[in-house]
Amino acid sequence: MLGNFKYSNPTKLYFGEDALSNLKVELASYGTNVQLVYGGGSIKKNGIYEQVITILKECGKVIFEDSGVMPNPTVEKLAEGCQIAREHQVDLILAVGGGSVCDYAKAVSISAYCEDDPWEKYYIRFEDVTCKIIPVGCVLTMVGTGSEMNGGAVITNHKQKLKIGHVFGDNVFPKFSILNPKFTYSLPKYQMVAGCFDIMSHILEQYFSGEDDTTSDYIAEGLLRSLITSSKIAVKNPEDYEARSNIMWTATWALNTLIAMGKTTDWEVHMLGQAIGAHTDATHGMTLSAVSIPYYKYIMADGLQKFKRYAIHVWDVDPSGKTDEQIAREGLDRMETYMKELGLVMNLSELGVTEAMIEPIANSTLIMEGGYRILNHEDIVNILTNSL
Amino acid sequence: MLGNFKYSNPTKLYFGEDALSNLKVELASYGTNVQLVYGGGSIKKNGIYEQVITILKECGKVIFEDSGVMPNPTVEKLAEGCQIAREHQVDLILAVGGGSVCDYAKAVSISAYCEDDPWEKYYIRFEDVTCKIIPVGCVLTMVGTGSEMNGGAVITNHKQKLKIGHVFGDNVFPKFSILNPKFTYSLPKYQMVAGCFDIMSHILEQYFSGEDDTTSDYIAEGLLRSLITSSKIAVKNPEDYEARSNIMWTATWALNTLIAMGKTTDWEVHMLGQAIGAHTDATHGMTLSAVSIPYYKYIMADGLQKFKRYAIHVWDVDPSGKTDEQIAREGLDRMETYMKELGLVMNLSELGVTEAMIEPIANSTLIMEGGYRILNHEDIVNILTNSL
Repeated sequence: MLGNFKYSNPTKLYFGEDALSNLKVELASYGTNVQLVYGGGSIKKNGIYEQVITILKECGKVIFEDSGVMPNPTVEKLAEGCQIAREHQVDLILAVGGGSVCDYAKAVSISAYCEDDPWEKYYIRFEDVTCKIIPVGCVLTMVGTGSEMNGGAVITNHKQKLKIGHVFGDNVFPKFSILNPKFTYSLPKYQMVAGCFDIMSHILEQYFSGEDDTTSDYIAEGLLRSLITSSKIAVKNPEDYEARSNIMWTATWALNTLIAMGKTTDWEVHMLGQAIGAHTDATHGMTLSAVSIPYYKYIMADGLQKFKRYAIHVWDVDPSGKTDEQIAREGLDRMETYMKELGLVMNLSELGVTEAMIEPIANSTLIMEGGYRILNHEDIVNILTNSL
Repeated sequence: MLGNFKYSNPTKLYFGEDALSNLKVELASYGTNVQLVYGGGSIKKNGIYEQVITILKECGKVIFEDSGVMPNPTVEKLAEGCQIAREHQVDLILAVGGGSVCDYAKAVSISAYCEDDPWEKYYIRFEDVTCKIIPVGCVLTMVGTGSEMNGGAVITNHKQKLKIGHVFGDNVFPKFSILNPKFTYSLPKYQMVAGCFDIMSHILEQYFSGEDDTTSDYIAEGLLRSLITSSKIAVKNPEDYEARSNIMWTATWALNTLIAMGKTTDWEVHMLGQAIGAHTDATHGMTLSAVSIPYYKYIMADGLQKFKRYAIHVWDVDPSGKTDEQIAREGLDRMETYMKELGLVMNLSELGVTEAMIEPIANSTLIMEGGYRILNHEDIVNILTNSL
């Protein structure tokens, strides 16, 4: 049921192939010092770096580069970014990249002036932000995490073998994000489909909770159908602008709080994926795809009516003459076929996980409430083993 | 196709049966003088007025009442509201009511300090706001228009026999809106189902444009399915909280710009409805329901593939062995059956329209581009005649 909630989403989005032309207008609202955050340098190859630098200079900004953000940003890198932000008293953090870069930028924005150890405060104790927040803007070059329009920021602590996401309030959302579907063209297919599955997983994590019938469920089904249709096109023709733009837009709405309204959610697939990521540094979307089918088959009986609905509303399973269980299972089978068609990683071995790693990964997996079943340690081990 | 667009929605929403408890926090952001806008006094009967007044007083606000807002707010009433706003230099306009009250509050907010005749500037010349805007907050008691989270404001000029809506930018959106589904319980069934159809019409006006396949279409289909399911429940049991809350939430998302992204749209059903409203003062949703089926049948051939998709995705029409035209028509037939089940007005005679009024109404109907067919005067007359 849609209970009591607050909905507020202050991020301004510019979408389309001309989207970057709006950066200038946005920059006018911020001071001179800009911390330019990006990853391994792919934006230098595809020309986006050059375009952004030109605009920043035209606007008279002083640029402080903060590059080398890794796919799973670490606490050590976070400390480095905070140092830059404080030292140069930056007025804006501009993230140019994918979800990791945006997540990192947000983490820096709330950690630079944090009066405590940010890892302890935000990721272990899950406390709210109480310090000054540096404004963040994003130029998205990779699709999936929805980080461009939410308050989420995932950080990895390798020493503690923990990868944890904290979803902050609307004061941490980016002030603006620039979404040009063409900026995602140069991404390797592996990353593209991983991003597609990340989107799907975001929707499913929210969809598979509750036994009611809310508007959020229907919007989620619409987003899923759009994603399935467009990802099938994009995997064949990565430069299909319409498909790539639908995927990009779906990704934003998959994780900007809208379809979470009225939902409890346990995000257990992400908890599994994050634990795998902390032990392997594998691509996030692939850690999710490797465990999803085994996970959903494991809990299917506990949320049977919703899995049945999923099969009919999303996968067009014809229910006539079938038991609820058969319908639900057929839905998951169709999902599996689709995932293989996309070329997703379907087992953990492919990500370098061995039997010996199951127990440590299970120990790193946070167990959450809010879904159809609260797992125990043995369940986690079983699901991971089934995913090998 | 999702082309170039800006998406920005700054309205903060509080939803649920405890939603009003958040009014206090919001009021703290504004000055002392509050213009309290409401309609004919139904909020005094159901106790909402009392609750709001108590909170306003507790917050030390000085209240300037501006009541008697009619279902189709007029230019004369608008002038009255502007007078109050200016005279008392109000810091916040608080609208307590349905869409008309919210629309009116927004119109006052941008007209009080308008350097020109607001009707001429905003509704005839469709110009942007250039003057100071007074902040608006809403406490919603009636569902349908989506006015609680958009920049729309419809105003009626009886002398000119014109009812015109201008959709303003995000600077005109309410700062906050309070949505308690229980506040809508006391509404007569006629108004409730009219509101439901207003929502459906908002979605369809945006859905029936373009021949592409965008995320907006899929979200629209999800919203439609949610609305259909919940309105069927609510019409039987108006105090079904889940159904009423789904309807309320769907209404907001039906018209807060999300599903308009990538859409051209002509809003022709609303143009017809508004012309009928200007000549009859009939309930808005019923003016739409009376013309919708005749209108869609009239233009069906021009957007056949979309009408076919609508039949399959929204009305579960089985397409096997049928022509596109048969499928599309079956979708509209099912829509008509649903509308009758809800008890909607299915013809103009019931709203007091006579044959003699067809020509004047057609003359007041704005003809728009962006849909599947640009109508001419004769088309309008035909559709109105088919709707009699």
